[in-house]
Amino acid sequence: MQLTQYTDYSLRVLVYLNVKRDGRATISELANYYAISRNHLVKVVHHLAQENFIHTQRGKNGGISLARNADQIRIGDVVRSTEPNFEIAECFNKEKNTCVLTPDCNLKNILYEAHLAFLEILNRYTIADTKSTESLWQLINIV
Amino acid sequence: MQLTQYTDYSLRVLVYLNVKRDGRATISELANYYAISRNHLVKVVHHLAQENFIHTQRGKNGGISLARNADQIRIGDVVRSTEPNFEIAECFNKEKNTCVLTPDCNLKNILYEAHLAFLEILNRYTIADTKSTESLWQLINIV
Repeated sequence: MQLTQYTDYSLRVLVYLNVKRDGRATISELANYYAISRNHLVKVVHHLAQENFIHTQRGKNGGISLARNADQIRIGDVVRSTEPNFEIAECFNKEKNTCVLTPDCNLKNILYEAHLAFLEILNRYTIADTKSTESLWQLINIV
Repeated sequence: MQLTQYTDYSLRVLVYLNVKRDGRATISELANYYAISRNHLVKVVHHLAQENFIHTQRGKNGGISLARNADQIRIGDVVRSTEPNFEIAECFNKEKNTCVLTPDCNLKNILYEAHLAFLEILNRYTIADTKSTESLWQLINIV
């Protein structure tokens, strides 16, 4: 069971902004900090802004920041937004599905119910809950 | 959120055996029915036998069959067995993980809790529950 890299990076952006002292960051800063592709981050940040999880501001003093308090951003909502076409198994993808059992198999419903339970647990937590210790805060703000 | 192809195929083998009239099948029969690689299925079947979900019998009248009643095989147990090193996000893989936040980030614990909820729902169902209609039974037994 795996979330996409896209979701992983989306969550990392939000976690970072939550612990950054001034609540602001640039894409280059995030790319350097996590040592991940700037191009990937551009897409991730664009999507997070579209979904109103973050604000972006252009210009010299621009950057990105959380669009609302971290305790108002539920993790399940972020994951649902970054994985809208979740494909737990092949039968969830209408175009690629080749399983001949699909019309009469109940497994898809069972997997879907489990998926909803997964998101339901994630929605009990917000981005504010990801900051477990003060050392994380220090780690980012020292850089 | 995606299960591995390995898990997908493992579940399909068990679903098939549950609906097959005589409860027996060969790997070639499964490969033909699902139009999937015989080589993949060999590995899947070997693992399912090792984990005591199925019995294999060599020889002319050999084949594979469920090792116990379908209502005694919980879906969560199968998934847990086929995805022992589940990696919901990069931070679950010690060797590949590059996320600098890992030691102090609580996201991993939150994702793990959601993963357990996913498996818990799956364990409310057994392979017997995947057979939703009689037509599935007919579909396989006509072939």
